[in-house]
Order: sequence, then structure tokens, then C-alpha cells
Amino acid sequence: MAATKKNTSALNEKEGVSQPETLNKEIVKHLKNLKKKPQAVGELISGILSQNQAALSRAITIIESTAQKHQQQAKEIIENCLPHANKSIRIGITGVPGVGKSTFIESFGKLLISEGKKVAVLTVDPSSSISKGSILGDKTRMEDLVKEENAFIRPSASGDTLGGVARKTRETIILCEAAGFDVILIETVGVGQSETAVHSMTDFFLLLKLAGAGDELQGIKRGIMEMADSIIINKADGENLKAAKLAKTEFNRALHLYPAKESGWAPKTLLCSAIKNEGISEIWDVISNYFETVKSNGYFQYKRKEQNKFWLLQTIESRLKSEFYANATVKKELEKQLKALNENKTTPFEAAEKLLSIKNN
Amino acid sequence: MAATKKNTSALNEKEGVSQPETLNKEIVKHLKNLKKKPQAVGELISGILSQNQAALSRAITIIESTAQKHQQQAKEIIENCLPHANKSIRIGITGVPGVGKSTFIESFGKLLISEGKKVAVLTVDPSSSISKGSILGDKTRMEDLVKEENAFIRPSASGDTLGGVARKTRETIILCEAAGFDVILIETVGVGQSETAVHSMTDFFLLLKLAGAGDELQGIKRGIMEMADSIIINKADGENLKAAKLAKTEFNRALHLYPAKESGWAPKTLLCSAIKNEGISEIWDVISNYFETVKSNGYFQYKRKEQNKFWLLQTIESRLKSEFYANATVKKELEKQLKALNENKTTPFEAAEKLLSIKNN
Repeated sequence: MAATKKNTSALNEKEGVSQPETLNKEIVKHLKNLKKKPQAVGELISGILSQNQAALSRAITIIESTAQKHQQQAKEIIENCLPHANKSIRIGITGVPGVGKSTFIESFGKLLISEGKKVAVLTVDPSSSISKGSILGDKTRMEDLVKEENAFIRPSASGDTLGGVARKTRETIILCEAAGFDVILIETVGVGQSETAVHSMTDFFLLLKLAGAGDELQGIKRGIMEMADSIIINKADGENLKAAKLAKTEFNRALHLYPAKESGWAPKTLLCSAIKNEGISEIWDVISNYFETVKSNGYFQYKRKEQNKFWLLQTIESRLKSEFYANATVKKELEKQLKALNENKTTPFEAAEKLLSIKNN
Repeated sequence: MAATKKNTSALNEKEGVSQPETLNKEIVKHLKNLKKKPQAVGELISGILSQNQAALSRAITIIESTAQKHQQQAKEIIENCLPHANKSIRIGITGVPGVGKSTFIESFGKLLISEGKKVAVLTVDPSSSISKGSILGDKTRMEDLVKEENAFIRPSASGDTLGGVARKTRETIILCEAAGFDVILIETVGVGQSETAVHSMTDFFLLLKLAGAGDELQGIKRGIMEMADSIIINKADGENLKAAKLAKTEFNRALHLYPAKESGWAPKTLLCSAIKNEGISEIWDVISNYFETVKSNGYFQYKRKEQNKFWLLQTIESRLKSEFYANATVKKELEKQLKALNENKTTPFEAAEKLLSIKNN
């Protein structure tokens, strides 16, 4: 990936302009790349297994493609990567915009690489699309990490639904693992339910926060605290340090209120300054400690199996629903029944029977 | 109901004895009642609308019945009650066993009746069945309330699934409202997801707690605190009073940590001693205040519409799933695919495709 890196920012496109005056050069290159004569699938697979990043990148593009002809290829690639996958540790990272996720990932990623790890950085962003400039946006944000040979940074797949984006990310994880990446960092941008999706595809979930002026816990999305295996208070430096220490105490107290985790792990709050590279190795120590704990008590393996089952059932159920509601007769009747419900002329159960009888006819 | 009340406890059956030596007389009466020649549906409906509790009781039995012949009757009864329903306030009450739910409901119910209200008490208990003795158990627990002419106490419908039990309770609410009950209290026994079910069929959700030895918040089920519109610390009397006051402070602080509610209502913690009848009218003041707030800001009407929609979609989706997984070929293939998943020979998405292709063939 380093070869394709330019100093031009991918973010220079004007938002809301459907026909921009100048096309971003990076995007043009990316689009041209998509049109290139495809490499043989076998070549791509052996490329991935021999840790060739260009092959990995091209294979991910095939997985992300919605074109019919790519779907059979994607299937073949995944099938061949599967026996070599599942050997990494997968870390989810979330936090509101401005909390310093990119800077943190950069510092954290460089530390891991200095310890001999190979680090892949993926993003789940259901709101991403070319026009919003995020296709190459993430790469240019992590200017140092992108230069590392043992780093692979891939922005979010685009897609209409979180489910679609999440599926592509999960498949990308398999490919990255087959390509020898042993730490997968998955960033969520905090849109919609993306945290839940990322939580259900990672082993460890990290919540990044800033110290504010008291009331630290206000404004945290429902359920996020419960998912966190660790809370990191970033920008804990200079004048911020005192507030950060207070925030740490408050978060620790709040974490204490939740029921014990199934993993047997007690979530920890830590301070860091990603930009000054302070506190990063302590975070890695805690995470390493987590993996020792859950690998020895069997929770690691258990959770991965449960996650697979979750995604299997989730995929089935969301397809059953989407197929049902896509039916034109159902759509029309649903509208009618919702109106009747609002006027108290039917019950939810009676209305459901009516709708289900359409399917069964 | 008062007419059928006896001093014999319905709880005297021996647990785990499949052929008890003596049948509980209350249960015998109940079972005989089920076999009685059915009253004409029209008669039952006019009975309900003229606030006859015997007719109401008999109609609920029809709704709870799984017999085919009762289902058409149930439909007719509900349809005729619907135009007269929806005029009550619905209050959900939860708390662990031993917290004093029955005593609280008795004190609270009697206060409401003294203010001219008609009070129906329902229970959602997916674990209930005749052999567990809960068919008449609740009635005998509320010895004073059951004597009141303006009280109607109906234990949980029995059923295999929470969905089934919840459906019957929701339909029972409609009948009670048509029979002129203007306050519906719905107790959950805290089994499985019954709190969520009760929360989604009530306007106000009340969590009963006891003061303990510090660490009050430990052991509260995930999500319950977020659902509560008020937390009541019961048994706040005598030597317990000091601990109860401390618990109140801690709960208030914890409630403050949650994001603001859509209703615009800030949940409140209150003390009471149900057995000594202390603090009950203060609780009713708070609840009355809630209803004033949400009726004037439109949230009351909005929430009821959303709840109807929720139950409609919920019913459809659970039926789609249960029909899919009931298919014998699907069952067999699911087992096979789960095994392949555990051995990393497939992905959740690939496995889902295989299973969905069965349905579409």
C-alpha cells in the first residue's frame, strides 16, 4: 500500500457537489484500478498467502464488489484463506470524532510493529461513500503508520446497510489473517449501530474518551460502557492531566456498577497521550494481559464460536425479514395495518396474522 | 372474582409430584370452569362492557385458550372491546423475589381504589404453569386487595414462550380496559426477558429494590435501570431506614449517569414501606406527575403507537424465524453448518446462504 501513498489529501473534494470541478487524483487511480484486467484468482490467493499486500488489497476489492462476476471469485478466495485465518487478535476501537482515534491507532500500531507484529487497520463506517471522501481519507490520516511495511490500512467498505458493510469487514479480516497480520485493529466511527457490529467481530473492545468538565459519563451512547473491555482517556497531558485523572476515577467507579463480564475480565481505565506517545505501552500490557486471561480460561475460543453463530443467525434473520418486507403486497398491507393500529381498529397480533397470511399464500 | 376466593392456599401442591395425592380445590374449580358450557360470545362482550367481572374473567380464559374453537371467539371479543380500550394508564412493576411486590401492589392498589380508581393486576410469568401453583397463587397473596369490588387480579397466562404469554397479557389489557379498569398494574417476576416484554406494554415502569449493605447497584440485570421511570426502595422502615436513605442517594447518582429519556422525564428514586403503608401516596404523586408530563408533551400517545408497531413487527419476525427453523431440512443443515463453522471450514455468510437456499427452493 505504501507505493500508492501520495501527499495529496483525499479530503479535498467539496461536500454536496455532485459534479465536482476536479476529481481527486487518488480516487481516479482507485477507480482505474477497479477496471484493470483481473488477476487470476489463484494468483491472488497465493499472493495473499505469501503476504503480498498488493494481492491482498486487490482481493479485498473483489470482496467489496457488488458485481455478480466477482461474487464467485470472492467465495473462492475466502475458502482458500479460511484454513490460514483465525490466528490474529482482533481489537475494536471506538470513540467520538475528535477523541484522537487515528493518532491513537498510529502510536499503538507503531508500538506493535516495533515488537515484531504485523498490524492491519480496518474501519467500519456505514456512512462512507466516495462522495464523502472517506475512501482514502483514513490512509492519509495515519501518515506514519502507512509507511510501515508491516502495516496495512484499509478504509471502510461502502454499502447501503451496516449489515453489508460488517459482512465485508468480517471477510476482510479473514484475508488479512491469511496474509499474516497478527493484530487486526477495527475502528468504528460511532455511526448508528456500528459499535455493536464491531464489538461482535472483535476479541477486545476499547473505548476512547476525553476528559471533560465533570459529568464524564453523560453523552455516552447506551450500551457502549457495557461493551468496553478498557476505557482509554486520551490527551492526558499538560493542563489536561488533572481532569484526565479525575475522569479515570469516575469511569472506574461507573465500570464497577456493571455486572461481572462473562469473560472473567474486569474492565480497566487507563490514561494516555497518543500524540506524545505516552501510556501506549501500558495499554498494550493490559491488552496482552487480557488475551492471556481469556486464552487460558477458554473464553477466547468460546467467544469466537459464539460470534460465528451470531453472524450466521443474524444473516439469516435479516434476510428473512428483508425478503418478507420487500414483497409488494406485504408493503401495501403493512401500511394499511399500521393505519388501523393507530386508530385502535386492530391489535398488533391480528395485524401480524393478516400480513403473515400473505406470505403463506 | 371475590366470589371465588377461598382461604385455601393454591400453593399447597407438592412440587415435583406428578400425581399429587390431593388436588387443590381451587384448581379443580378452575378446571371445571373451563369445561362449562360456553356462554354466547355476545353475552360475554356485553358483560365486559357493563363491567361484569365474571364475564371478563371468562373472556380472558377464552383468550388464553389454545383450542382452535376459542380462537375465533377470542378475535370477536377483542374486536368488540377495542373501541372501548386504551383509556387506562398501564404501570409495569418489577423486582426480585422477596422485594415485596405483592405487598406493594396491595398497598398501592388500595390507595388507588380509595381515590375512586378501578385497578386490574396482571402478571407476566413465562415460567408459570398449573403444576407450579401460580394459577391462583397471586390471588391468595393479595388478601386484602382481592376483596375490593374495584380490583381485578388475574395471574399470568401460561405458555411455552414469553412471546405467547406477552401476547395474551396484551390482549387481556384490552379486555380489562373495556371493562372500565382505569389503572392496569402489570407485575413481572423477573424471569428471562419478561421485564422487556412488560416494559414494552406499559406507560410507566417501576423498579422495586431493597436497601442492602452497600454496592446497591450490583446484581441489577442489564438494561433494567435504563428502563425504570422510578426506583422504589421498599421496606424503608425501622432499622432499615438509614440504609434505605443511603441506597436512595446511590441510585439517584446512578440514574443521573444515563442519557436523558425520550419522554423528557427524569427518573426518581423514592422510599416506601409497603407493609406499613408509608410513602405510597408520594409514589402515586410522582406517577401522576409523570402522566401529566407525558400526556401534555405528546409522548404518551407516541409511545403507545410505537409499542403497537413494535409488537406488530416483533410478532411477524418471530413467526418468520420460527417457521424457518422448524423446517426439517433447515434443522439438519443448520447443525452441519454450525459444525463447519466451528472447524473454520466456512464463514457465517456462506453458511447462511446455504441455509437460505433451502427455503427458496
